[in-house]
Amino acid sequence: MDPDAVAKAFVEHYYSTFDTNRAGLAGLYQEASMLTFEGQKIQGVQSIVAKLTSLPFQQCKHNISTVDCQPSGPASGMLVFISGNLQLAGEEHALKFSQMFHLMPTPQGSFYVFNDIFRLNYS
Amino acid sequence: MDPDAVAKAFVEHYYSTFDTNRAGLAGLYQEASMLTFEGQKIQGVQSIVAKLTSLPFQQCKHNISTVDCQPSGPASGMLVFISGNLQLAGEEHALKFSQMFHLMPTPQGSFYVFNDIFRLNYS
Repeated sequence: MDPDAVAKAFVEHYYSTFDTNRAGLAGLYQEASMLTFEGQKIQGVQSIVAKLTSLPFQQCKHNISTVDCQPSGPASGMLVFISGNLQLAGEEHALKFSQMFHLMPTPQGSFYVFNDIFRLNYS
Repeated sequence: MDPDAVAKAFVEHYYSTFDTNRAGLAGLYQEASMLTFEGQKIQGVQSIVAKLTSLPFQQCKHNISTVDCQPSGPASGMLVFISGNLQLAGEEHALKFSQMFHLMPTPQGSFYVFNDIFRLNYS
């Protein structure tokens, strides 16, 4: 399958899950997964989901501007780099963000998130 | 060595080389290296350096705001995620950018850039 198509499908799935059922992101991480969220490093599926579900906002909507992807090397991983904005319920202005994922293949032929780095783009 | 210290040292070296001797970046890429620059995919050290040295500006200065890093898996690679701004000579406003590097170890105990994705953050 075309890597760009895989990356786009992952990105759509990830952010629609984030925006509608954040706890459901647990299915996309594993124990070795790492998240760096605004500089804070978190490891493991439970800790990552605890962080994402306890962010100080409930309803939100991610709007994606760009998706770039590259193969990450011999382990059949894939790097996905996203820019977009995050609209929080009740806020007038959206927050711009950049995020990268390193996806690794699962034995079932799918992918899980091995690395996840998120930063808001302050202006 | 502390991975965060390695990442910071790499970032300082990369951008100071970019700002003072762009052709010198050739030493940081290899034939398998990939660059995605504003959505354009380029592979190989010569093509990458040709792209970077032919950008439509000469003098510039990168100012780094954040550097995040994570190990990328069993191959001892390292992911580095940067946000910052790019000041072009003669321009009043700096351009905000986000960039990620996937660094892979060399047999000499150093690192080279395997993946490089660059995006300006348009506001």
